[in-house]
Amino acid sequence: MPSDRKTPLWESIANDLRGAIAAGHYKPGDKLPTEAELAARFGVNRHTVRQALSHLIDAKIAHSRRGAGTFVLAKPTEYPIGKRVRFHQNITASGQRPTKSHLSIETRACDASEARLLQLETGAPVVVSTGISLADALPVAMFQSTYPADRLPGFAGALAAHSSVTKALEACGVTDYTRASTRISATAATATQAAALQIAQGAPLVFSTSVNVDDQGTPVEFGKTWFPGDRVTLTFDE
Amino acid sequence: MPSDRKTPLWESIANDLRGAIAAGHYKPGDKLPTEAELAARFGVNRHTVRQALSHLIDAKIAHSRRGAGTFVLAKPTEYPIGKRVRFHQNITASGQRPTKSHLSIETRACDASEARLLQLETGAPVVVSTGISLADALPVAMFQSTYPADRLPGFAGALAAHSSVTKALEACGVTDYTRASTRISATAATATQAAALQIAQGAPLVFSTSVNVDDQGTPVEFGKTWFPGDRVTLTFDE
Repeated sequence: MPSDRKTPLWESIANDLRGAIAAGHYKPGDKLPTEAELAARFGVNRHTVRQALSHLIDAKIAHSRRGAGTFVLAKPTEYPIGKRVRFHQNITASGQRPTKSHLSIETRACDASEARLLQLETGAPVVVSTGISLADALPVAMFQSTYPADRLPGFAGALAAHSSVTKALEACGVTDYTRASTRISATAATATQAAALQIAQGAPLVFSTSVNVDDQGTPVEFGKTWFPGDRVTLTFDE
Repeated sequence: MPSDRKTPLWESIANDLRGAIAAGHYKPGDKLPTEAELAARFGVNRHTVRQALSHLIDAKIAHSRRGAGTFVLAKPTEYPIGKRVRFHQNITASGQRPTKSHLSIETRACDASEARLLQLETGAPVVVSTGISLADALPVAMFQSTYPADRLPGFAGALAAHSSVTKALEACGVTDYTRASTRISATAATATQAAALQIAQGAPLVFSTSVNVDDQGTPVEFGKTWFPGDRVTLTFDE
């Protein structure tokens, strides 16, 4: 419990939490203890805890999510979009640890829009993977990627084995691939997206669609990606 | 009033409105008549009008904005981001008529962030213009652009006279400028942005910041732009 009675109690608690965050005890994206837990830990009432948390929120050190609690605010991850967009490289370069969590990998017939973008016949088989990309423990993107199955024999298995798209493509003979086009708009998070990305329903998302091609210019991936608007900044340098 | 009694009334009204939209009588972004007006025009009750409007909304021909009415849905405007980003060219190329409405043009001292991006000393004078960009009558962007006043003598007057940034820069001796960098995130529309862009408060916006440089690589503009997420798709081709 704070002992210096000249400093208001809430301020001592705010300083204590600020120190724990600075020391890395709570990392960007981490949930802080609940008001009840903090009140018990510091031996104060919840009103005082709320003052301390409000102070951290005003100072842009934490943010609250309705019904979910208070979280350490992460600086937006810079995500370069260029000729070669590589998730693992991008996140590593921003000083964070990249992981991917696949929700599903399925093979099915492509629809007319996928066929046009991947230069396939409608109904040709495609591998569709969906999942979440994380930087440290924080979800920074939700993706749905579509790959031409006949051009990439064994791709579904390779993707399940490697998790890295670059390595899975390599296993199927694609030694390099480049971004042919990127299209960007914004959309409000659905309930499913909000749950997967740990954000509020309706929160603004950057919605990107992109086509990657091999060294012959043949499409090898059509990707849809949803980035939480306050966690990721896409950067483009000419 | 529709006379073919085999077609449900609401469907005749929906077809009538669909025809008027197809004929260009109501253009993308236009507000359709109110339920009361349509009920009076077609001699039916408001329930029937509501059925007709729901049909247009389901068919993605119109959309309703809470408290504001029903509007003809516009296909998103494609907005290419590349080496040379020109608002008038971009909107004209998408088959629409570009206009800009300036809300303010002021000269003031720049802050530390503007100084860094424009390669100025903090406190150097900058011209800051804010306004709305429209495609046909529909707001497609809200902007705040910052220009180095000392590098561009007479720029504030030129901008007020020309409205086109390209022409105003030309008048100050900048015959060409190119995009050096673009950064993109998403944000929820504030009340002010919502009113200016005629969208709902909290609606998702693409938020772009960019730096344009002259042929010597010297910054001539730092721009912040907010695009309604469902009206504009930014496109990037490698």
